[in-house]
Amino acid sequence: MKKFTIGALAIAFSFNAFAQEQVNTEAVQKIRKEGLENSKVMDIAFQITDVIGPRLANSPGIKRGRDWAVKYFTELGLKNAKQESWGDFGKGWSVERYYAATTAPFYRPIIGYPKAWTPGTNGPIKSEVVLIKADTVTDLEKYKGKLAGKIVVIESVMVQPLKNSYTPDVTRYTDEKLAEMAAAAPAVPGQARPGGRGGNNQMAMMMRMRQNRAAINEMLLQEKVGLILTYARGNYGTFFTSNGASYAVDAKPVAPELEVSAEDFLHILRLLRAGQKVEVEADVKTTFYPQDVKGYNVIAEIPGTDKKLKDEIVMLGGHFDSWHSGTGATDNAAGSIVMIEVMRILKAIDFKPKRTIRIALWDAEEQGLHGSRGYVKQHFADPTKMELLPEHGKLSAYYNLDNGTGAVRGIYLQGNAGAKDIFQAWLNPFADLGAKTVTISNTGGTDHQAYDAVGLPGFQFIQDPMDYNTRTHHTNQDTYDRLVEDDLKKSATIIASFVYHTSERAEKIPRKELPKPVAPRN
Amino acid sequence: MKKFTIGALAIAFSFNAFAQEQVNTEAVQKIRKEGLENSKVMDIAFQITDVIGPRLANSPGIKRGRDWAVKYFTELGLKNAKQESWGDFGKGWSVERYYAATTAPFYRPIIGYPKAWTPGTNGPIKSEVVLIKADTVTDLEKYKGKLAGKIVVIESVMVQPLKNSYTPDVTRYTDEKLAEMAAAAPAVPGQARPGGRGGNNQMAMMMRMRQNRAAINEMLLQEKVGLILTYARGNYGTFFTSNGASYAVDAKPVAPELEVSAEDFLHILRLLRAGQKVEVEADVKTTFYPQDVKGYNVIAEIPGTDKKLKDEIVMLGGHFDSWHSGTGATDNAAGSIVMIEVMRILKAIDFKPKRTIRIALWDAEEQGLHGSRGYVKQHFADPTKMELLPEHGKLSAYYNLDNGTGAVRGIYLQGNAGAKDIFQAWLNPFADLGAKTVTISNTGGTDHQAYDAVGLPGFQFIQDPMDYNTRTHHTNQDTYDRLVEDDLKKSATIIASFVYHTSERAEKIPRKELPKPVAPRN
Repeated sequence: MKKFTIGALAIAFSFNAFAQEQVNTEAVQKIRKEGLENSKVMDIAFQITDVIGPRLANSPGIKRGRDWAVKYFTELGLKNAKQESWGDFGKGWSVERYYAATTAPFYRPIIGYPKAWTPGTNGPIKSEVVLIKADTVTDLEKYKGKLAGKIVVIESVMVQPLKNSYTPDVTRYTDEKLAEMAAAAPAVPGQARPGGRGGNNQMAMMMRMRQNRAAINEMLLQEKVGLILTYARGNYGTFFTSNGASYAVDAKPVAPELEVSAEDFLHILRLLRAGQKVEVEADVKTTFYPQDVKGYNVIAEIPGTDKKLKDEIVMLGGHFDSWHSGTGATDNAAGSIVMIEVMRILKAIDFKPKRTIRIALWDAEEQGLHGSRGYVKQHFADPTKMELLPEHGKLSAYYNLDNGTGAVRGIYLQGNAGAKDIFQAWLNPFADLGAKTVTISNTGGTDHQAYDAVGLPGFQFIQDPMDYNTRTHHTNQDTYDRLVEDDLKKSATIIASFVYHTSERAEKIPRKELPKPVAPRN
Repeated sequence: MKKFTIGALAIAFSFNAFAQEQVNTEAVQKIRKEGLENSKVMDIAFQITDVIGPRLANSPGIKRGRDWAVKYFTELGLKNAKQESWGDFGKGWSVERYYAATTAPFYRPIIGYPKAWTPGTNGPIKSEVVLIKADTVTDLEKYKGKLAGKIVVIESVMVQPLKNSYTPDVTRYTDEKLAEMAAAAPAVPGQARPGGRGGNNQMAMMMRMRQNRAAINEMLLQEKVGLILTYARGNYGTFFTSNGASYAVDAKPVAPELEVSAEDFLHILRLLRAGQKVEVEADVKTTFYPQDVKGYNVIAEIPGTDKKLKDEIVMLGGHFDSWHSGTGATDNAAGSIVMIEVMRILKAIDFKPKRTIRIALWDAEEQGLHGSRGYVKQHFADPTKMELLPEHGKLSAYYNLDNGTGAVRGIYLQGNAGAKDIFQAWLNPFADLGAKTVTISNTGGTDHQAYDAVGLPGFQFIQDPMDYNTRTHHTNQDTYDRLVEDDLKKSATIIASFVYHTSERAEKIPRKELPKPVAPRN
């Protein structure tokens, strides 16, 4: 077992502000050299996005992806590379054909895509488009017997004209914004998140609209409607996929439905509102795969080598699944690429860690963090019971990446104040790469929350926003082109160092108080 | 005939700096009220973009558009509304079906469109994609006999990865930029435009590449290739149409060719460069219309009422044709909408002009200002001869609009210093709308140049850039959504006042020196 010495400069640097926390500058130099000069991030990116493609949970795409990942991990020399089932997901689904065009008043192809887990049109269809206007269920009576095989649009006050944006699509955090994040106060437990969904009135209206929409959908199915065209957020040819239909094995059938780019949808809607005849033709083929309903994460390890610590674990990961209309490049090939590259870097510098380092490429994050939640439940604890399994005591920390291609600029503590000085010290050697901010704040919406939910230290890094929220997150334009090599390199280098130091640290990362059991999710 | 009085405030305002030039503030008030409060710009916009659609020269779309325009002008009470042939254009062309998708390594629909005036695939085709690599004609030998029915991509060093843009898509001119334009020096005749196509080396390289590409195209046609996929500039689902194939009646045949959005093209190219198998399927149907090769402008008038001046003319216009992949909303429905609205405003305020006011919606601007050049040649002078026709002496000025949806912020003098104080005075009542800049500079690329070429005062207004260069000019995303009502209203109001004052002015607008005959265009 190798002993690490700390260079004089590093001592002067790290021990000044954070006297307790050690940084191994020799290891940092090796990691930087490997991560910044011998990077494989774009090779990995090419495989996952251009060759494998979209990776919707339980689709043929993600299965190809998992097979590739196990093979790649094995080639890297990682141990115990495997697909590990986290539980039951539901049906797989894929698209084999998407064609739609407006044919009257003139020909124009429609940029759009089938809503996930919806059936196809069962061959080419063509019809005048019917505008469904119904504020109440009674209003639906007038459509009965008239919609078989028809293409329809459902009127909604939620659909508004596009507005110009005078701000850039791609942005990075400024020093001011990062300073603000660093100075943030801890969240008060139980306090509602600001910037939520508006007041009770708006919530009530949305509930009514949702119920109304459910009634309309039910009617459309009974009437054997041909195809529903639904507005998709976005502009200029970019559209955002919303949540799909149910993937449950026993899900009620739904009608064929396309998510249509804003320009093409609004074109049709303006014409229909003006009483103009609109005709659309479409040919959509999708396939369901009800055979294997299980979901799988991909797991691989660099086994620990220290007698006392090798049973302890450092975990890192990101979700490997994506939505279906792009190639899931920033959401979340990016996080997967970086974490795979972290493992490659650590193997390339021939690191023999004290603790075991374990990577997880999560499944079905997009449908509710299913892969990580299932894994945490099997390995650590069920948050509804909080009876701790043996591994719960063995995990030092879990690091997650899932906010796009933007470089790591720091880390969210998720309220874990005890980790602040440690992470601040570990970031010090990367100030030149722009990563220096530790914030007490929480960030949500991804897999570290599965760990946080059972009192385990789970962290997501702060990443430059880039075009994640404007153009790539869940869009048809989330492709290889969006991946910025320099950013991915920096992130892999910084996270490799975090994982390195977590594995070598005398103690595990401090924990927050254990949470109480929560009510089961339905 | 009504006599116009000038309010005290206006006298103080206009006569201070520009003592000679009169502004009729009563008329301005009427025009502002009609243009800003009773605007029909969005109704006109809806007709031209959503109902009529793309208006490629000599296509069924522009024919529908011209019929509508003549009808609308007649309903407005304009006189002599007609389609007037400017000469021979060539074949019409339209798209009836566009479908293309990558089917291996995975399914992904391709955002793209047929290059104008190319044939379709004659039914569905599907093939492995062949990457054509040829630096010289000799390199083509190896492909002979292997390409029949195949889908191909031509390797080119010009195709580069996409870069992030950290600037907004939509912008307006700042006061600083406008001040800079106002202070510009006149262009020195014969001096090369700055920001051109680079040095001799680059020109030579482009010439070689063009010749090489022509040889490749010839070979592909002989080999009966199935479909060429060509890179189209743009990003995030927006792509720019380049020039089409030849529309000449006796044009040599060309192979079917798609312009493919950057993301989809680069995906295929990266895979091919890496030696991965790529399969594409497509079904493209286009139609040629060789029956009527003539091109037509749409013309309408408000006849002059002054005995001495009614034979004199004020003209206004913009091109009505567009490229085919969007609905030509900003290029140039916008200019057409504004100029049509100008005529509507002038009729609505019951204006009886001294001079005749004539609107022209030009044809085939996109292929070389054909409609306006043909009209100028028939009515005013042939620039290659400069023998002046009688109407040459009768035209006061021609006003053009063709820079997108952005509001008028001023006017380009095209080097005509004599018009400076006149226009400055006429802009004064619109400073509150942001229009105040008169620049001596030229602007090019549109129909006022046809007038300027024969020594007639032809002007294009300064317009806010908006997303014209970034997202709409010649793109598939140039749709109704891009039209900003407030901007169109302002432009129509300001231009209506310009046209009004030009018709009522004692003298015609001053002219520059007559140009010498130029060499014929080929």
